[in-house]
This record gives sequence, structure tokens and C-alpha cells, in this order.
Amino acid sequence: MPISNISKQFGNAVRSRRIASGLSQEKLAEKAGLHPNYIGKIERGVRNATLDVSNRIARALKVGLPKLIEEAQQKRSNAKK
Amino acid sequence: MPISNISKQFGNAVRSRRIASGLSQEKLAEKAGLHPNYIGKIERGVRNATLDVSNRIARALKVGLPKLIEEAQQKRSNAKK
Repeated sequence: MPISNISKQFGNAVRSRRIASGLSQEKLAEKAGLHPNYIGKIERGVRNATLDVSNRIARALKVGLPKLIEEAQQKRSNAKK
Repeated sequence: MPISNISKQFGNAVRSRRIASGLSQEKLAEKAGLHPNYIGKIERGVRNATLDVSNRIARALKVGLPKLIEEAQQKRSNAKK
């Protein structure tokens, strides 16, 4: 299936939260139990994360998954960074 | 990756909402642009849905994805049906 808007929006929200938390991609990957390259792909919106992976990232960022998705969908308008 | 708790929780929440909306799996599948078998697998928690697929299902159920995930995670305790 092609890459969806929501994946790009989610990637932007993850990157914002990660940077605000002062975490590197490597550190976030370690906390979430994922490969650093995979975090990079999620942030760039070039991978469609599963609910499971999204949830692990949200937990590593200490935010609920519903909240993180809400942020992602709200950032729709300024997602071009 | 193995099937996660959140996939099972999400499946239960989707099934509850679908039944409450009076939709068959076939009808929900049609609205979401997915195969009926796939909806069945999501509901049974035997497939890890991507954010994109989850969002399409949420839209077809006329609920926001954050809200649907919230319901899924709240139903953790009575998910054994």
C-alpha cells in the first residue's frame, strides 16, 4: 500500500516530540526497542508504522498514542518541514 | 513482529463500534476500501494494522482515530470476549 498522509503526519509529530525531549534517533530507538534506521524512516514518513510500533514509540516518548496521533493530525497544515 | 496487545485491543474496539453501527464486516470493508477478510483479521487481532489502515477504518466508523485507540486501550480489562 502506498505511503499515506497519516504516516507523514505521524513522522513529523514523532520528530517534534523526540527533539523536544532532547533524544537522538538512536536513543529513541533504544527506548522503543527498534532499529535507529527504522525510526528515521518513520520520521520521514517513508514507512507505514503499525499500531504496535506506533505505540512503542509513543511509550518511549512518554505520551499516550491517542495524544500523539492527535498532535500528528493537528499538524497537518504545517507539516512541510 | 509478533501480534501485540494493542492489535487485539484495537480489534475489539473496531468490532464493538461496527456492531453498534449496524454494519457487517463486508459493509465496513467496502466503506474503508479494504478486503472483508482483512477486516475480520483486524477484529480478531491476528493482523497488526498500520496507522493508515487504522485511520481508514476509523473514518469508515465515523470516529477519530485517537478516540478509537483510546477506546481500545480502555477496554484492556474486558477484552476477553
